[in-house]
Amino acid sequence: MDSDYGIPRELSHLQKLRSLYQPQLPPCLEGTAVRVEFGDTTTSLDPTDAQTIARAFPHTFGKPLAHFFRPTAKVPAPQIITEHPAISIPLQYNCMFVLVILYVTGILLPLRLTGGTQGLFAQKTLEINDDILSTYKNQGGYDLLGRTQDQIRTTEQVQAALTACNDLKLDGLVIIGGVTSNTDAVQLAETFGEAKCPTKVVGVPVTLNGDLKNQFVEANVGFDTICKVNSQLISNVCTDALSAEKYYYFIRLMGRKASHVALECTLQSHPNMVILGEEVAASKLTLFDITKQICDAIQARAEQDKNHGVILLPEGLIETIPEVYALLKEIHSLLRQNVSADTISSQLSPWAYALFEFLPPFIRKQLLLRPESDDSAQLSQIETEKLLAHLVEDEINKRLKAGTYKGKKFNAICHFFGYQARGSLPSKFDCDYAYVLGHVCYHILAAGLNGYMATITNLKNPVNKWRCGAAPITAMMTVKRWSQNTNSLAIGKPAIHPATVDLKGKAYELLRQNATRFLLDDIYRNPGPLQFDGPGADAKVVTLCVEDQDYMGRIKKLQEYLDKVRTIVKPGCSQDVLKAALSVMASVTEVLSVMSSSSSGAQTL
Amino acid sequence: MDSDYGIPRELSHLQKLRSLYQPQLPPCLEGTAVRVEFGDTTTSLDPTDAQTIARAFPHTFGKPLAHFFRPTAKVPAPQIITEHPAISIPLQYNCMFVLVILYVTGILLPLRLTGGTQGLFAQKTLEINDDILSTYKNQGGYDLLGRTQDQIRTTEQVQAALTACNDLKLDGLVIIGGVTSNTDAVQLAETFGEAKCPTKVVGVPVTLNGDLKNQFVEANVGFDTICKVNSQLISNVCTDALSAEKYYYFIRLMGRKASHVALECTLQSHPNMVILGEEVAASKLTLFDITKQICDAIQARAEQDKNHGVILLPEGLIETIPEVYALLKEIHSLLRQNVSADTISSQLSPWAYALFEFLPPFIRKQLLLRPESDDSAQLSQIETEKLLAHLVEDEINKRLKAGTYKGKKFNAICHFFGYQARGSLPSKFDCDYAYVLGHVCYHILAAGLNGYMATITNLKNPVNKWRCGAAPITAMMTVKRWSQNTNSLAIGKPAIHPATVDLKGKAYELLRQNATRFLLDDIYRNPGPLQFDGPGADAKVVTLCVEDQDYMGRIKKLQEYLDKVRTIVKPGCSQDVLKAALSVMASVTEVLSVMSSSSSGAQTL
Repeated sequence: MDSDYGIPRELSHLQKLRSLYQPQLPPCLEGTAVRVEFGDTTTSLDPTDAQTIARAFPHTFGKPLAHFFRPTAKVPAPQIITEHPAISIPLQYNCMFVLVILYVTGILLPLRLTGGTQGLFAQKTLEINDDILSTYKNQGGYDLLGRTQDQIRTTEQVQAALTACNDLKLDGLVIIGGVTSNTDAVQLAETFGEAKCPTKVVGVPVTLNGDLKNQFVEANVGFDTICKVNSQLISNVCTDALSAEKYYYFIRLMGRKASHVALECTLQSHPNMVILGEEVAASKLTLFDITKQICDAIQARAEQDKNHGVILLPEGLIETIPEVYALLKEIHSLLRQNVSADTISSQLSPWAYALFEFLPPFIRKQLLLRPESDDSAQLSQIETEKLLAHLVEDEINKRLKAGTYKGKKFNAICHFFGYQARGSLPSKFDCDYAYVLGHVCYHILAAGLNGYMATITNLKNPVNKWRCGAAPITAMMTVKRWSQNTNSLAIGKPAIHPATVDLKGKAYELLRQNATRFLLDDIYRNPGPLQFDGPGADAKVVTLCVEDQDYMGRIKKLQEYLDKVRTIVKPGCSQDVLKAALSVMASVTEVLSVMSSSSSGAQTL
Repeated sequence: MDSDYGIPRELSHLQKLRSLYQPQLPPCLEGTAVRVEFGDTTTSLDPTDAQTIARAFPHTFGKPLAHFFRPTAKVPAPQIITEHPAISIPLQYNCMFVLVILYVTGILLPLRLTGGTQGLFAQKTLEINDDILSTYKNQGGYDLLGRTQDQIRTTEQVQAALTACNDLKLDGLVIIGGVTSNTDAVQLAETFGEAKCPTKVVGVPVTLNGDLKNQFVEANVGFDTICKVNSQLISNVCTDALSAEKYYYFIRLMGRKASHVALECTLQSHPNMVILGEEVAASKLTLFDITKQICDAIQARAEQDKNHGVILLPEGLIETIPEVYALLKEIHSLLRQNVSADTISSQLSPWAYALFEFLPPFIRKQLLLRPESDDSAQLSQIETEKLLAHLVEDEINKRLKAGTYKGKKFNAICHFFGYQARGSLPSKFDCDYAYVLGHVCYHILAAGLNGYMATITNLKNPVNKWRCGAAPITAMMTVKRWSQNTNSLAIGKPAIHPATVDLKGKAYELLRQNATRFLLDDIYRNPGPLQFDGPGADAKVVTLCVEDQDYMGRIKKLQEYLDKVRTIVKPGCSQDVLKAALSVMASVTEVLSVMSSSSSGAQTL
């Protein structure tokens, strides 16, 4: 047992009360037994990737979806595969079931690995008892679990994990994380499957970035909390801006490559402006384009006698600016060749050198940092907000001299909101979501499934309408046939890729509809601090609520239609019924094959 | 009417609910009429200052304290001076009473000045109606009031304010702010008194710094909110530190010269370490001493296999470090002589030059910024956290080489928590406090008092135990006979000076008792996000609760004793009673005169 846990945690009054909060379960997991039912076998989103993924993952690809139901629910009999007892909380410590434990949830199983992945390799475990359980329930719990390198990827790491799971006789290993962790999870599941290791690997979608989104996964644990905490802070800054009336605040938000956090926070708190990485990438905006766009906005506001404002920038923005990206690519390539940071600038191509020299010294230093394990730049360390504030100041001063800008002196204050939000006590939604996901994990493992992700759909509705299931992680993978990254390892290898903000989606449409009012009218909105009780406690993420989801529910519905057709059109049915069925089915399959070939084309581009 | 207010504010669900929150009134202000009762005339804390202050403020010095009561409360009759009708909320718009209105509170009077002090000079007003009122109640409201230069100090500014108040026929002008604003307020009151301007000036203690504290003022509006929001963020960072186990977070907190915010946040969230400016000043710690102290702490933690931590630094710290202070003094003196920032370093004294050159370039640039209007450095702009992280890194690397430090590589992440906290929706306590203060202001003005500050004491108890009164602002002033600042204007001039953390006080004692556990045991405590409803909503500032206050209550009690003595020992009483009274009173006055002369000595030093 780790000595750290000898010291009792000192909980605040609110923490104590949070630890007593008991989330609900949806009806399907509520009874004394739960029934798992399998759907059709899965494929990948892009059919052309299927073969590559199948070859790389023979033990985990092409498995069916799983749905969890009450044993009494009315469904066609042949699909009932297995039933297992529902678990009660706190868990029976005497059960033989041992697995690694779950972020946020109250479900703690007897043995938990501690110290992150390094802890797993070193087989560091902690026996869970009521005392420990009670102080971490609904508290987040990453501090209990620990984080180290956050990856199980190299052959050595995978082997170490295999050895640990065998030695500890684990029934299951639950991997909690985003796109990279879950890519690691399915690789581990495949290796375990091949090695006939009895430990089953399950993934859980937990990432503040909100970028592990696909047909099966509607939301990530942590996203609601981080967006609420950030929106609170952004709103506070908006109020400050409106009080002082003399500053422009440039706020960079955590969220890695995708701009989900920035989009959601904008919809919650209505700052004057947000620049999404996806917009910049789609329109190929240069550093000068972005600077000009911000300056035009500032000028338009100055004409209305407004000399303050709040501008949000996602941390991934810097990588989406074409010329900066190309520069980063050259720098990373030189770093991989072990060129020392001091001498890199002299080895850059002439145009990259020119850009590098143009940038202010603090940014140069930050661009020279080693890339992360997923090949992206160290986004949390690159102060894009300061770079843009600096460029905007120069341009505004030029316009001031030229007489085109007539507002007051431009003053910028820069912020990076990241670390201070991600350790927050989780929101009610995140507690509920993680709690139910924890139960789903148990049922996945009880059903003996390997390489699955726990899924809950219909999340925008109340908990009693949630649908629980599991999807093979391989069905969420795609294969990149090319890559701007010089690291060729990533090319051609199946992986879960981060979902970016859909510029055709409803959430972005909502932003576009309001962008001008946000910019000019200062309709700042303060969602306030995260509330656990009373009004506001049940508020949900805006982007979740406006989007049209529940893919898992629809897949289930389709299956029911197909079953009904099969029941109605059984051998012995009338000639007319069969003819009608044939005609309609021919037309359906025709339409669908046309649609799916064109959509797969769109996916590949 | 300002055009900005044509656009309806878009309130979130929580904001709407906050606007419906109706704070209680203490019993003394609750009835249909309120009675004001005057106490003894006031003096200054340091008796030797009294003459200087009296000379500078002939119309506002030496006035009596005022206490507010229910008309039915039992008190000796001769002291009842006046009674006036209690106000109801929302206010009667038809009353002739017009004044500027109040931060946070629901009390809005028909006319409000907008656009800060510049707005006052320009006579920009806004008529308050129910619609505007309803969207700002319990929301802070600094954005409604506006801020500009935040000072009314020069002869021109004071004259402009006088003209505005006369032109607008204001009955009262309520100045909301901290030590400098309230020093301005009493100067204004004096000028108005001399000019026989009918507008009465009232001060309200509102500052997030928490440094407007004295015998009469226990707490400042805003301090509770800022400490709660900051403590939430600090706790989140602590959780992050404990999860990642590889970073040291250096967090600088707003709060100007005094370290009240840093102390309170430490007591709420239990980070590993805090360095108070008052400790550094008292022990005359140099930059190297502080660096060494932090490195020793990091080394002690590394020996327990802990390679993470959270360290708080008040923004005022930088000015308390002796050699940095001396450097700043030289720089500011040169800036005042209009030496350009580029050439300052060459004109520094040899030792100041050596220190300047030793500092990293980013700090040099920040130290060269122009001082603020109160002569202090631009504390919010000087990244002390980055400077210390930089020095600590160097020192740890040296110790690593020397083999004295055996921990992991040192990684620092720096934060400045300021702007993102001060615009928050106010806590329940701050709403209550400001609401009652608003009522007290009305009664001060109704009583025709000029140059008073609204005071509420016994604040650590529930609202129904609060005591309401008013104290002449001149009684809070002291005179500095010397100053380290080269700006001689401040010397010898009465002013309210910021109260620093009392190193002999109970709050600091609480910190000292726990410092070792905080440092080594990671007993991080998360007070959670600010709650408006349910558990946690009534939590109060720790430093307020541990301190022994209620000066106003005691002054009142003493007065009662003296009155009783007078009643018992009336001419005609027995010789024995008179003798006993004489003997005891002689001894009391003897003891008190010895004590007050020694305490005034302590104050002057």
